[in-house]
This record gives sequence, C-alpha cells and structure tokens, in this order.
Amino acid sequence: MNEHPKFAVIGGGSWATAIAKMLCVNLTEIAWYMRNESAIEHIKKFKHNPNYLSSVEFDTKKLKLTSNINEAVQYADYIIFAIPSAFLSGELEHLTESLDGKIIFSAIKGIVPETSLIVGEHFHEKYNIPYDSIGVITGPCHAEEVAMERLSYLTIACGDSQKAKIMANNLSGNYIKAKISDDIIGTEYAAMLKNIYAIAAGMAHGLGYGDNFQALLMSNAIREMKKFIRKVHKMKRNINDSAYLGDLLVTGYSIFSRNRMFGNMIGKGYTVKSAMMEMSMVAEGYYATNSAYKLNQGLRAKTPIIDAVYSILYEGKEPKKVFKKLTEKLN
Amino acid sequence: MNEHPKFAVIGGGSWATAIAKMLCVNLTEIAWYMRNESAIEHIKKFKHNPNYLSSVEFDTKKLKLTSNINEAVQYADYIIFAIPSAFLSGELEHLTESLDGKIIFSAIKGIVPETSLIVGEHFHEKYNIPYDSIGVITGPCHAEEVAMERLSYLTIACGDSQKAKIMANNLSGNYIKAKISDDIIGTEYAAMLKNIYAIAAGMAHGLGYGDNFQALLMSNAIREMKKFIRKVHKMKRNINDSAYLGDLLVTGYSIFSRNRMFGNMIGKGYTVKSAMMEMSMVAEGYYATNSAYKLNQGLRAKTPIIDAVYSILYEGKEPKKVFKKLTEKLN
Repeated sequence: MNEHPKFAVIGGGSWATAIAKMLCVNLTEIAWYMRNESAIEHIKKFKHNPNYLSSVEFDTKKLKLTSNINEAVQYADYIIFAIPSAFLSGELEHLTESLDGKIIFSAIKGIVPETSLIVGEHFHEKYNIPYDSIGVITGPCHAEEVAMERLSYLTIACGDSQKAKIMANNLSGNYIKAKISDDIIGTEYAAMLKNIYAIAAGMAHGLGYGDNFQALLMSNAIREMKKFIRKVHKMKRNINDSAYLGDLLVTGYSIFSRNRMFGNMIGKGYTVKSAMMEMSMVAEGYYATNSAYKLNQGLRAKTPIIDAVYSILYEGKEPKKVFKKLTEKLN
Repeated sequence: MNEHPKFAVIGGGSWATAIAKMLCVNLTEIAWYMRNESAIEHIKKFKHNPNYLSSVEFDTKKLKLTSNINEAVQYADYIIFAIPSAFLSGELEHLTESLDGKIIFSAIKGIVPETSLIVGEHFHEKYNIPYDSIGVITGPCHAEEVAMERLSYLTIACGDSQKAKIMANNLSGNYIKAKISDDIIGTEYAAMLKNIYAIAAGMAHGLGYGDNFQALLMSNAIREMKKFIRKVHKMKRNINDSAYLGDLLVTGYSIFSRNRMFGNMIGKGYTVKSAMMEMSMVAEGYYATNSAYKLNQGLRAKTPIIDAVYSILYEGKEPKKVFKKLTEKLN
C-alpha cells in the first residue's frame, strides 16, 4: 500500500459531493467519477456541482473529474461508492479495470436490488473483495449539513481497523468527527433498515398520527432493528451508538429525508407508483423494504414495522388499516 | 379497597387537564383540584379550562371541581399529582387530610426542589406512603396531542401491578394505550432526566448546531440516561422502551417543549434569569439539572451532557465554550 493512498469518489449526488468536499480538506488530489458529463463541465468551469449542494465551492485543481469509472478506479487505492444502490449494478457493468487490491468503501445506504445484498456483501460475493478491504461510511449525517459545515459525526467501519483509521483521518476536519468501528455488517444493515423506518414515520405522519406516536414508533424501531441485525450478524454492539440510533433519528425525524417524504405521500393516499413519479429522487427504502422483508423470511426476527411497510408497498394493503393493526403490536 | 375506586386529579395545567379528559372517558365522576378559583368557575360555566387545552370540552356533570386540595384527597382512593414539581411542597402544606391508605400517582416530570427527591421518593420519605402504593404515569405524551385525540401511549409504573392495571384501565381509551411496568424509580428518573437533555437539545439548536448533531446528542443522551438510572436503581430494563427512549425523543425533538425552548434561549445568548422571565411557564429541567448533578456527585455516573448543562445554568459558563468541549466527549 502506498504511503499516501489515493482516493476516488464514485457518484455525483449530494452525499458523493459532501464526501468529495470532506476529502478535499485533507488531500491535494482526489478522483471523482460521475456519469453526467455536463455536470463535470459545470464543476470545472464554475467550481460547484450544478445539481447537488451547489453552495459548496471546490478547489478544482484538486479534482480529477471523470465520466469514465475505470479512470477513477485505476487511479485510486480507496474507492468510495456513493451512488443509489439501485444504480450500482449498472455502473459496475462498465468496469473493465480490476478491483483486486482495491479498498472499497460503501457510502450507500441500501440494498442492491439485483442481488438483494447490502453493498459490502455484493462486493464480497460478486468481486471477491475480502471483508478486511471492505468498509462502510455511515452517519448520522445529512449531506446538506456538511455543505453548511455544521458539526457532524461519522462512523467508519472496516474489518481492518488500520484502513478504517486511514479513511477516518482523511474525512475528518473542523466540522467532521469520524470514529471507527469493526461492525461492518451491522452498520450497513442499520443504514439500510433506517430508511424503512423513515418510510414508516412518513406514512404515520401522512395518516395524521402525531409526535407522541412518532416517538413511540422510533422507540419500537430501534428495538426491532436490534433484533434484526442480531439475527444477521451477532456480535457485541450498542444499538444506541450513533451509527445505529443516531442514524435512525436523523432520518426518521428529518422532513428532508426522501424516504420519509415517500412514506408521507403514501400515507396521504398516493399510490406507490404515483408517489414515485412525483419524486424525482429514488427512495432507497422502497427496495430495502422488499429485501429486508424477504431476508427476514429466513431470519424470523419479529419485525412488525417492516412487515407493515412491506404490506403497503408490495401487497397493496391500505395504509390506514395496516397502521391501525400495527398500533396494537407496538408498545 | 373500593370495588369502584375513586380518582382525583391535582393540578390545573395542561397535563392535569389531559389526564382529567382521559379519566372522564371511563368514569362517571372524578374530583379535580386546582387552586385557581376563576378557572373552576370558567370550567363550570363554559365546559373547558380557560388556560390550558381550552379546546377540550368536559361533561361537567362528571367533575367534582374544588379549590380545596383536602376535598379532593378526602374523596379519592387514587390521587394523581400533575402540578409542576416546584409547587408540590407548597400545595402539600395545605394538606390536613391524611394520605394514609391512599394510592399516589405522580404525573410530574421533575424533582422536588426542597428535598431533591423525585416525587415518588418524596411521598415515600415525607408521608410514609409505601412504595407499592406509589405509581408513575409517563409518556411519550404531549398533553396537546391528547387534546387532539391523537393516538398516544402511556406507561403506568407501580410496585403493585394490580394498582398499575387499575390506573391503566381507567386512562385507556380509543386514543390512549397504557401499559404497565414495575420500574417506578427508573421511569420517574427518566421522565426527570429527559428534561435536562431537552434543555441541551435546545441549547445546541440555539448555538447553531444542526440536525446531524441533534441526532448524535440524543444517541448519547439515552446512553447517559441508562448509566445514570442504573446507578440509582439497578434492575432489568430495556432503556429503549417507550417510557425511557420514547419519552426522551418526544421532548427532545419537540419545538413545543418548554425545556427545549428554555435551552434554546440560553443558547441564543439570553441569561438564565432573562430566559426565565421571558417564559411564563416553569422549565422543570432547570431544577432537575441541579438535582441530577448533585445526586451524581455520589453516583459518579459518566454524564458529560448533564455536567455541561449544569455548568451553563448554575456556574455561569459560556454555552458556546461548554458545547465546544462537550462535542469532544460525545461520539
């Protein structure tokens, strides 16, 4: 490994832009791949991403921008994927460069629809990346607040703590504190599951439930998340650490969360299809719900909230009735 | 004990009004004490409390309203105290009726300033009420949402589960679900401590910290609360149950919480005195901070958030500097 490892960011959205901003504080150069060529031209000319976090000004001398994913992969030792999970497989199809020896970090909060795997598992199973070269970057962290340089805490999980530390050091700064964890599976599942709970929170709001119920729902959600993750990968973890509970809260209580917004529309009576058409962004939790529900057919954790969201999104059940039943199961 | 026990509500504020509303669903008569005689006249005439939750209409035939606390105490088997903890001692001074054989429930979220005891302990130590005749009514539950009949969950804690059940049954209804617990000490401390964390959340907001930090703060707060309560009374409890985590969240995330509002003003630069003068309501958490901090001198739980709030409220430390240091201790 290079003494000064090189970093690449894969993705042109708000979270990718926030990560590129964090890295530029500590590094003299990073590679940044996005497929949108006109966005690249815009960044080169005007120093900001025209589509996401456009208030963030970049020192473009530091950016090796490219619309060819192979250039970014070839350049870097550490590759951070920050694209919606639904697009990951498609992007990876363009890959001709080998990922051998590369360190893959996922900043994606979701499940790969084609394989029903979380991102770390997908890279391990499909690309033979060993788990000690796979990591996760997780919050609680809205990209928008990184743009505003508001103090935010990240958790960097990797089986190899040395690699986690290198990533943490290169993301940390005045307004970013990054700690490390060895729970790569648990943190990634938490990041995925929280989007389902954010959809549930949005549905409840759309149906007219208030703040008392929202607090009750979140208190049930974290207990449900703990049971689910323990079934997937049992290890000593404090579910109230910021990577689990903090991440759930920042999403579940955010009116900006697209998952919560999606749920809210469903609760208010939109069909799934019309809510999706109305929103120009992908709600990761939609896919996560399907995968988590199906995975849980084997795990058999008690997950009344996930079951409720699944039955609304995938079985066409009426939100009002489903939530009425759900309220009997929560406490 | 009477087969049909009688209930009295002590207090004329919003939470007392909400509890009176809940009881009236299940009972043909309740006693309701408040010291404000003109409010009593108003309720008798116009069927609603003029000062709090004024949208709630009462069937006044069910209400034995009185401005004499002894009448209410004499009448009832179950007495629910729902007045600010700072006024409890003063009200109890008017008591000439004996509390012997009475069942005392606290719906007060705070500490009695004169004795630095939580309410249950105060009744136990000062009035010799046995612990199996003392109970706690706790949320997550904003009174305002009870007024709107939005689904809310209560936890009723009592050493004697039969008494907890009777109270729970008499509060439950279409929009109220009440479950029982035997953790009378833990639930009451949680209800008290959460107000300190709500002040901290308000301070952070006033100082310009964002949602990412708020989520991090709440994730640290619940871990801190767990440590504190375990030192006070060790027993098997799930700190993520709604009486602990749910109650913390509904207060910490509520822009209506007077504790959060109080903290917000301090964060924005008000002095403690001017913030108190500006607010016409008492912020319970102000007294709770002093008591919790002092109690913890003996307990020695690690409580960086309580320590920070204490140093700002009682030692005149500068919020900005204190929070800067606090951010180094959280994770």
